[in-house]
Amino acid sequence: MFRYKVTVEYDGSRFCGWQRQQHDFSAAGQVVLSPLVKPSVQGSLEHALFCLTQESVLVEGAGRTDAGVHALAQTAHFDLSKEYDANKLIPGLNFYLRPTGAIITSASLVSTSFHARFSARSRIYLYKILNRRAPSALDEQRVWHVPYLLDLDLMMVAAHDFLGTHDFSAFRAAECQSKNPVKTLDQFDIIRRGENLEYTVKARSFLHNQVRIMVGTLVWIGRGKLPPSTICDTLLSGDRTKAGPTAPPHGLYLAGVSYPPDVQ
Amino acid sequence: MFRYKVTVEYDGSRFCGWQRQQHDFSAAGQVVLSPLVKPSVQGSLEHALFCLTQESVLVEGAGRTDAGVHALAQTAHFDLSKEYDANKLIPGLNFYLRPTGAIITSASLVSTSFHARFSARSRIYLYKILNRRAPSALDEQRVWHVPYLLDLDLMMVAAHDFLGTHDFSAFRAAECQSKNPVKTLDQFDIIRRGENLEYTVKARSFLHNQVRIMVGTLVWIGRGKLPPSTICDTLLSGDRTKAGPTAPPHGLYLAGVSYPPDVQ
Repeated sequence: MFRYKVTVEYDGSRFCGWQRQQHDFSAAGQVVLSPLVKPSVQGSLEHALFCLTQESVLVEGAGRTDAGVHALAQTAHFDLSKEYDANKLIPGLNFYLRPTGAIITSASLVSTSFHARFSARSRIYLYKILNRRAPSALDEQRVWHVPYLLDLDLMMVAAHDFLGTHDFSAFRAAECQSKNPVKTLDQFDIIRRGENLEYTVKARSFLHNQVRIMVGTLVWIGRGKLPPSTICDTLLSGDRTKAGPTAPPHGLYLAGVSYPPDVQ
Repeated sequence: MFRYKVTVEYDGSRFCGWQRQQHDFSAAGQVVLSPLVKPSVQGSLEHALFCLTQESVLVEGAGRTDAGVHALAQTAHFDLSKEYDANKLIPGLNFYLRPTGAIITSASLVSTSFHARFSARSRIYLYKILNRRAPSALDEQRVWHVPYLLDLDLMMVAAHDFLGTHDFSAFRAAECQSKNPVKTLDQFDIIRRGENLEYTVKARSFLHNQVRIMVGTLVWIGRGKLPPSTICDTLLSGDRTKAGPTAPPHGLYLAGVSYPPDVQ
């Protein structure tokens, strides 16, 4: 058995999310997709692998991105019974995958102890906002359009309160299945490039919707709808209703996953 | 009569180019578009203006971009018989324009001596290349995918030879209608941001396809298919066959147009 690690880039607007659904590309390669339903990234990858290798494999991803959320560098692994040259696997898989809106950007043979999800040491997410009055003609499904004046300094000061280890219960979706709401945030940067704002966050792992609720809350602070002290108060209270709204999925990008050198 | 200057952003993949065609949105507001034909940006703007004001106006643009070419900041002007608050004109026009793939990002009332095309002092174009083996999942119609190793230093040295005043006959399309092939290039920068290459060029005006042939030639130099001396030799010869290929339209962006302060 040979284990492969792949890096996947995808346009989230063309998928129902990472996770395979009931009506989806099936792992056995049969397309059971209705034209009204978008496929999952996982199902599309499994389908492409079946087309290429005739093997029904299970693909495991580092992060289960929601519908609309993009990936610059999602990481996944799968096992094949044969050994392939990783560099030849890429164009072969992309031949089947590309029409769906996903692309394998790198592939390598790894130890069978490697697990895309459980071996991950940290995940980096990027959130993009277009901050101007007019909506975007070029990036409509790629940025959150916020037509209000946002105070960058205020948001940067507030974002600092997210750093470190906290109970993030107030910043998780109601349907979040994580047993432990305590997470450690290693990085929270915000930069402005002209009309664009980019939020970069890094942690070992995140709760469901955590990045989107953190960004949504910062945007309300930047607009002056909430005071900068909201972050501390809300973290302490654990009360989701004290935080801001959940920012929409189409501004969010899974930008990278890192692993300890020894498992690769 | 009131003259308005507008800045327009558009996704070139959704248009047949800037210039109004026979089968297009008509200036009188009637949609004569076949579902098989893409509209022009100019026709779409004139249609949106008719919908909003009931006036049949002619929109003049600073640059006639080809099919597939994008704009971050195309400039155009038009005349209306009534005076409108320019800030209210923007959302009104965007209501009709947005579904076509174009957006007005700014508008102002200007002197009737202002002409989007003839008053322009300089135009800036941006050309984007994705330089890696795998194609793009997120920017397929927004970048030129070049899967070969490109030598940035070699391209930068060669690009320097474009600067200044030259007869650009070898770098124009066969159908170019300009009477004078002599142009003055003020800027030619190339930068690498990770896997992306960005070419920025600035001049008072350009010949038809000039930017795309210059970029195509530099890419062949960067690949080692042509020597860096090609630029000088080809400029002197005036021979189109000595230059490289015409880079595809979907990597090109009209990034800005500048005007002398007194005409605005």
